[in-house]
Amino acid sequence: MQKVNSKIQVLDNGGVTTPAGFKAAAVSAGIKNGRKEKKDVAILYSEIPAVAAGVYTTNAVQAAPILVTKQSLEQSGLLQAVVVNSGNANACTGQQGLLDAQAMQELTAKALGIDPNQIGVASTGVIGVLLPMTRIGAGIEEAANRLSPDGGADFAEAIMTTDLVKKEIAVSAEIDGKTVTIAGAAKGSGMIHPNMATMLGFITTDAKVEQAALQAALKQVTNKTFNRITVDGDTSTNDMVLLLANGMAGNDLLTPSHQDWPIFLDALEYVALHLAKAIARDGEGATRLIVAQVTGAQTEKDAEQAAKTIVGSSLVKTAVFGADANWGRLMMAIGRSGAYVDPNKVDIWIGDVQVAAEGMGLSYDEAAATRELEKDPVIFKVNLNVGSCSATAYGCDLTYEYVKINGSYRT
Amino acid sequence: MQKVNSKIQVLDNGGVTTPAGFKAAAVSAGIKNGRKEKKDVAILYSEIPAVAAGVYTTNAVQAAPILVTKQSLEQSGLLQAVVVNSGNANACTGQQGLLDAQAMQELTAKALGIDPNQIGVASTGVIGVLLPMTRIGAGIEEAANRLSPDGGADFAEAIMTTDLVKKEIAVSAEIDGKTVTIAGAAKGSGMIHPNMATMLGFITTDAKVEQAALQAALKQVTNKTFNRITVDGDTSTNDMVLLLANGMAGNDLLTPSHQDWPIFLDALEYVALHLAKAIARDGEGATRLIVAQVTGAQTEKDAEQAAKTIVGSSLVKTAVFGADANWGRLMMAIGRSGAYVDPNKVDIWIGDVQVAAEGMGLSYDEAAATRELEKDPVIFKVNLNVGSCSATAYGCDLTYEYVKINGSYRT
Repeated sequence: MQKVNSKIQVLDNGGVTTPAGFKAAAVSAGIKNGRKEKKDVAILYSEIPAVAAGVYTTNAVQAAPILVTKQSLEQSGLLQAVVVNSGNANACTGQQGLLDAQAMQELTAKALGIDPNQIGVASTGVIGVLLPMTRIGAGIEEAANRLSPDGGADFAEAIMTTDLVKKEIAVSAEIDGKTVTIAGAAKGSGMIHPNMATMLGFITTDAKVEQAALQAALKQVTNKTFNRITVDGDTSTNDMVLLLANGMAGNDLLTPSHQDWPIFLDALEYVALHLAKAIARDGEGATRLIVAQVTGAQTEKDAEQAAKTIVGSSLVKTAVFGADANWGRLMMAIGRSGAYVDPNKVDIWIGDVQVAAEGMGLSYDEAAATRELEKDPVIFKVNLNVGSCSATAYGCDLTYEYVKINGSYRT
Repeated sequence: MQKVNSKIQVLDNGGVTTPAGFKAAAVSAGIKNGRKEKKDVAILYSEIPAVAAGVYTTNAVQAAPILVTKQSLEQSGLLQAVVVNSGNANACTGQQGLLDAQAMQELTAKALGIDPNQIGVASTGVIGVLLPMTRIGAGIEEAANRLSPDGGADFAEAIMTTDLVKKEIAVSAEIDGKTVTIAGAAKGSGMIHPNMATMLGFITTDAKVEQAALQAALKQVTNKTFNRITVDGDTSTNDMVLLLANGMAGNDLLTPSHQDWPIFLDALEYVALHLAKAIARDGEGATRLIVAQVTGAQTEKDAEQAAKTIVGSSLVKTAVFGADANWGRLMMAIGRSGAYVDPNKVDIWIGDVQVAAEGMGLSYDEAAATRELEKDPVIFKVNLNVGSCSATAYGCDLTYEYVKINGSYRT
């Protein structure tokens, strides 16, 4: 266990089933090509219906599971289960795709004996291919039979596509005199450029939270975490983050007026930020996490744009891969970001090495700068010196491996 | 000679010195590292002052030569010469950088015996390093002594950085009963994402044109050519296109009310589009030109955004490199472009192979689609089917070589 602060601590080996009342299971159903090579159908389940919130891709082309989940969640504000498949995104699949996403809900509802409208559906994988519904159905049935309070890690594994590592976490927080647990799992890797969380994320908690407050909290936290990462600037058709709060911790109802609301928000942000950084670090082909910390901006929006443009720049990303202290590319990125910039005021550090002051290069220790670029994470600090707002964004380097993975994704 | 239409033809082996009255020269001055490995200082000269127009990078961080050229050109509307160096961008170089850019003007003015305010200055190369002014000065003197009507090809070569091929062209047009010549040279390669021409471009003509009309024409043409290309989404601090019209063809003054104005515009657009496509095709590490033709958009802006997002998407670019007919990535790109899209109406072709109709995949001949993706250029046609506007954008694939070049640019 690792203390975050006096009220929040990270739990060892925690995942989405760590909060009270959650179970999960995942199975190999052969979704992508019929071969049962990896877990690809998973169910996350709460013993009782959970108050739920969701944020979704802003891509105008939205996959069928997005449409189905959004509609169901808006109806009741509750979710008792989430069914997920990897290997096929069920996107650009027209009317049949919608019917298939609904069928996933219904098959899961039947297997679990719960209301189909309280089931979220998420899919990730190749676009434009109809789901193999017979295999999906068999997978759902098998997963429903194997739900377990120990199934969190399997769930995190099943949602992976080109991800190399599982992304999961759980924290506990003292709230309202009770121990509340918040946990999450996520997948990312490619097509990662937020506007909303460009990814799948599932957050569970046993806290009891008012639905409107939960939705507002998820949106607020997403904007500072999942929406601050980028892998390749491409925004997926399937991105979704769902947050389920089943109330089994026994606390009084949390709303923004509760004295411990800030603790809940902090813990939620910790979970989301952990997952977001894990996604950035595990971007396709990436070898290192890039952190861009921008301070001294006129507005927070400016700081965010500058930070996100730095981590999104192909030229910055390749320079990090090559450990080349090419700070001019940071100036270029800041300059094209849309943020207000006075080129003669910008200070830049690579890790602890200041490389530019007032927009001009300093004579710095090249070897020291290179060492900072070989660290993981690589930290760029930029002070625009035109205001007092700041923001941090996260990305990864651009490598041969990214090109390799994406030159042959379908095959 | 190749006929474009009844009024315009492409001249064999043409370049910036093909129009009457232009001379150029280029020399190796050892700008980047003291070694005289390639031509890196060049002068373009007109026997008489030319009416001139310029468009410049929209990056908030603008290099010293941009500031100096813009100011000089705004004063008189005339340029008689342009001095260019590669190997060093003179960007992020503060007050000394401005003094150095002005010194380049003055040294050139002295060597040629002309007004410093009628000299454009352009630089391209590494950011954040002061120019080696002694070597620059020697290069300017040598180039000024070697100006020649045959110097166009040398000029085009000297402005290259990571470019692999020279980019130059000349066309002739029948205007006002005279034969008018329009020519150009450009460099591109990396940091190519327009907003303005993300590159250096120099266009010369012996046509006589009113200054305001010339500026308007350059802007209009740039928006459909240089601003429709992307290599990596990064916008340089040094982009500039200059257009010099010295009037030596002897035509009556061209303005938009002249009956042959459309012919001049067509010829200018032909030159600019040729150079823009050459830049996209020669993007760093690129193996193929990508052409995205979007039709059926509600507005031209929508069509342009969709087309540019397709050619700018890392996932589309890697799929082209891998010749993977992953049309779902086109849907993704269109969807995130900001253009109005009805996902159920989109038709997509890869070359002549239709792969999607009404937003859904067709069963198409995979081998035929792969063959289309192995052609150069690769042509994506997208009909949004929600309007009658169209636009075309140009890009290139994303390859191992791009990563290699940019992981070690400075060293």
